[in-house]
Amino acid sequence: MQISISELAALLNGVVEGDGSALVNSVAKIEEGKTGALSFLANAKYEEYIYSTGSTAVLVNTSFVATKPISTTLIRVEDAYAAFTFLLEKFSNPTAELKGIEPMSFVDESASLGENSYVGAFAYISKNVSVGEKTRIFPHVFLGANVKVGKNCIIYSGVKIYHECVIGDNCIIHSGTVIGADGFGFAPLPDRSYKKIPQTGNVVIEDDVEIGSNCSIDRATMGSTYIRKGTKLDNLIQVAHNVDIGEHGVLAGQAGVAGSTKLGKYIVVGGQVAIAGHLQIADGNQFGGQAGVQASIKDENQKWFGTPALPLRESLRSSAINRRLPELLSRLEALEKEIKNIKSE
Amino acid sequence: MQISISELAALLNGVVEGDGSALVNSVAKIEEGKTGALSFLANAKYEEYIYSTGSTAVLVNTSFVATKPISTTLIRVEDAYAAFTFLLEKFSNPTAELKGIEPMSFVDESASLGENSYVGAFAYISKNVSVGEKTRIFPHVFLGANVKVGKNCIIYSGVKIYHECVIGDNCIIHSGTVIGADGFGFAPLPDRSYKKIPQTGNVVIEDDVEIGSNCSIDRATMGSTYIRKGTKLDNLIQVAHNVDIGEHGVLAGQAGVAGSTKLGKYIVVGGQVAIAGHLQIADGNQFGGQAGVQASIKDENQKWFGTPALPLRESLRSSAINRRLPELLSRLEALEKEIKNIKSE
Amino acid sequence: MQISISELAALLNGVVEGDGSALVNSVAKIEEGKTGALSFLANAKYEEYIYSTGSTAVLVNTSFVATKPISTTLIRVEDAYAAFTFLLEKFSNPTAELKGIEPMSFVDESASLGENSYVGAFAYISKNVSVGEKTRIFPHVFLGANVKVGKNCIIYSGVKIYHECVIGDNCIIHSGTVIGADGFGFAPLPDRSYKKIPQTGNVVIEDDVEIGSNCSIDRATMGSTYIRKGTKLDNLIQVAHNVDIGEHGVLAGQAGVAGSTKLGKYIVVGGQVAIAGHLQIADGNQFGGQAGVQASIKDENQKWFGTPALPLRESLRSSAINRRLPELLSRLEALEKEIKNIKSE
Repeated sequence: MQISISELAALLNGVVEGDGSALVNSVAKIEEGKTGALSFLANAKYEEYIYSTGSTAVLVNTSFVATKPISTTLIRVEDAYAAFTFLLEKFSNPTAELKGIEPMSFVDESASLGENSYVGAFAYISKNVSVGEKTRIFPHVFLGANVKVGKNCIIYSGVKIYHECVIGDNCIIHSGTVIGADGFGFAPLPDRSYKKIPQTGNVVIEDDVEIGSNCSIDRATMGSTYIRKGTKLDNLIQVAHNVDIGEHGVLAGQAGVAGSTKLGKYIVVGGQVAIAGHLQIADGNQFGGQAGVQASIKDENQKWFGTPALPLRESLRSSAINRRLPELLSRLEALEKEIKNIKSE
Repeated sequence: MQISISELAALLNGVVEGDGSALVNSVAKIEEGKTGALSFLANAKYEEYIYSTGSTAVLVNTSFVATKPISTTLIRVEDAYAAFTFLLEKFSNPTAELKGIEPMSFVDESASLGENSYVGAFAYISKNVSVGEKTRIFPHVFLGANVKVGKNCIIYSGVKIYHECVIGDNCIIHSGTVIGADGFGFAPLPDRSYKKIPQTGNVVIEDDVEIGSNCSIDRATMGSTYIRKGTKLDNLIQVAHNVDIGEHGVLAGQAGVAGSTKLGKYIVVGGQVAIAGHLQIADGNQFGGQAGVQASIKDENQKWFGTPALPLRESLRSSAINRRLPELLSRLEALEKEIKNIKSE
Repeated sequence: MQISISELAALLNGVVEGDGSALVNSVAKIEEGKTGALSFLANAKYEEYIYSTGSTAVLVNTSFVATKPISTTLIRVEDAYAAFTFLLEKFSNPTAELKGIEPMSFVDESASLGENSYVGAFAYISKNVSVGEKTRIFPHVFLGANVKVGKNCIIYSGVKIYHECVIGDNCIIHSGTVIGADGFGFAPLPDRSYKKIPQTGNVVIEDDVEIGSNCSIDRATMGSTYIRKGTKLDNLIQVAHNVDIGEHGVLAGQAGVAGSTKLGKYIVVGGQVAIAGHLQIADGNQFGGQAGVQASIKDENQKWFGTPALPLRESLRSSAINRRLPELLSRLEALEKEIKNIKSE
């Protein structure tokens, strides 16, 4: 990205105030701006920075009224934040141009690759795999037999997808994530050793899902483990066999969902939350960081904290009193003394 | 798997009731059955489903007596569940046929590969590695110098095993797991920086161990980190340097065991449990999800919950009262008022 | 390592007592010694073992005075522990000899590789990457476009570093770690679905940093995520976008730091600790295992435990009383009865 301010303004139907011929080649927060950077001002809270920013250009809303002199060049647009993210998407995707099959990759002859797809070196595409159009398979990716990946996906370097798993359209999966490894199923034997229970199902990832790095999403014992449409997973997340995560959920880093649990739609799960197995969680429930969810939840749209997870208000009260326990103990001891005195009178 | 019901029955010494010529090509839970699927009924709790299942065939125990008309075909066997898992193992292992060294792999000329072993493309086999017979090394696996892998193992795509580590027979290691990276050992220096302590030991994984995806099992500072015979690890588990996990243990996802801790046999560790370093845990102890184990345990076969981990009964009581703290505080305040009244009388 | 005791002593300016011609080929703790092993005795607590050790040679301090007969060979040096770690470093680094570009690697013609660097088979070096002298890039490593890696680094097998990220000198990054994947940023839309916020920043790892296996360190939304000079990360750690971890910190396994949080210098973070987003933590603070840090900390050098994290003393007191809650409840009930009695008199 090396482009003049006038060219940017033209792309955005914006109006330039200042030197339109100056070049920008990077983006920065308005308070960290430097020469060549483009910033934006959308939130009035940050207004002070526009008078001192080092950025070469700043996107502002049409309605913005300066209250002091400004030395940077402004581009006025209807919605400064929307214009900024539009530019980021347009210019910042380093994978957009990747196409074709690089040498030193392995693509089984029975696999089918969509138009304008990309397969990086050292990627391994097994039998009967199908990859949709414009999907980019980075180096070191492994796609097991019969895997289906939809169109417009980005599968980053080192992702492993076991046999039979299905990925929808417009999905992004980051490096190190493993999809479809065996669920954790073992039958105890009389001698206290364990026998493996074959895991014969698969994983189905629906459209528009993004999965962070180093996640583990296990295949079902039978049937499928599901990540439904639009759901977003952060990094290092554990999704056990036969879990079903509803549409448009958000799970933060290091969260874990145990086997056969079904989360509704619009669920929000904080970092390091653990959700036990075989539960049903209704739509729209939210869980604070490190919560431990040990029971099903029937009501929708509640907030939960702590282990075991309690409703927000209850959890805050208990936690506040918990901190006052030494004081409570003293007060209890004082009462005991008083009663002893009263009785001895 | 595309096989007639009669052929299946023959494999199982079973008796067909219904159309033995129908073909099955998949498996399903009895309540989710569809055309072409094989299901089983072992638990009387699920009996109702056999009268309405969409499955083409259902395995039942010889003793099963129908109480309503059945439209699916039955195969009667001594133990329906055992027969089902026998079939799963027979037909569902997509790796069973893999053999030989694929082109574009790297196998050092000093390495020795057992009969009928498999090395996938882009696998890297270093100096003096030995791989046992029938062991399958998937694409993108790295085996460092002098690594030994036993026979009948499956090392899935992307597993990394550092130099000198030893894997027993019949082990399964899932994608993304790293075995033998340096333990976390640093000596503080007077200027508050740290100096690396060389980690010169290795990791020894005994026979019949299964390790899930994206686990980290560090090499010992000196000596070995051990995972003993028959133990099963889920995904994203941390095993620090010089840990020793006894035989036939089970550790659920995202659990962590800190340095030099020794777990006995038959240990059961829940998800996200943390076990501190330098502890000794006696045989058969069990830890509920998210427990924090901060002290050694000498008694066998106890159940522990919470942080710090308490015996099950004690933990349940404290946790129940903890939830009632606001009520306790009110009752305490009421008593204080009463005593004030009594004293002022 | 196969070397005579006399040769070792010469390397260390040490004095041999016993058979200097015997050969050592391994190291062992003094209590686990066996033929061919070298051990050390630095801590008087372990003195008893020197009289029975099976090790062929033992390093001892010049000042050591035996109180019983010794059968092993001694090497007397000024500082036995320092001499031991010196030898470990000298002999135990299996990567020290690696040099050159192995066949079946991919190195873009625009990339620059320093003198005596190493690139393993199946490594992928993208456009405009620069790798410093003596840096070793193991098999299956992915370096995205414009990545810079300093000198004397070890990047172990399967590490993935996304475009634009920067690694300093003398860094060690273990297998499975992913640096620079997209931060977890999504804007909620009116229909309750989410829109990806482009993550256009990078990750900057400063000099002398070591990062364990299977860590996830996300790129900044804008600007950089920082791991400062000398900091050490264990395994399976989550570092979110725009986090800044100060110099000479230590983070134990499975810890997580949420977005935009800034940790000072000399921070110590226990295993499975979660630090919430947008916090500022002053220098030298320490967090016990599984702590949940929910607020900024202005004072330096404090110790914190629990969720929410409390100062050490306060946390210990609350946690001790928490365990006595059933007793407190009984005492409260006893008081209630007494008062009832008093009132009814």
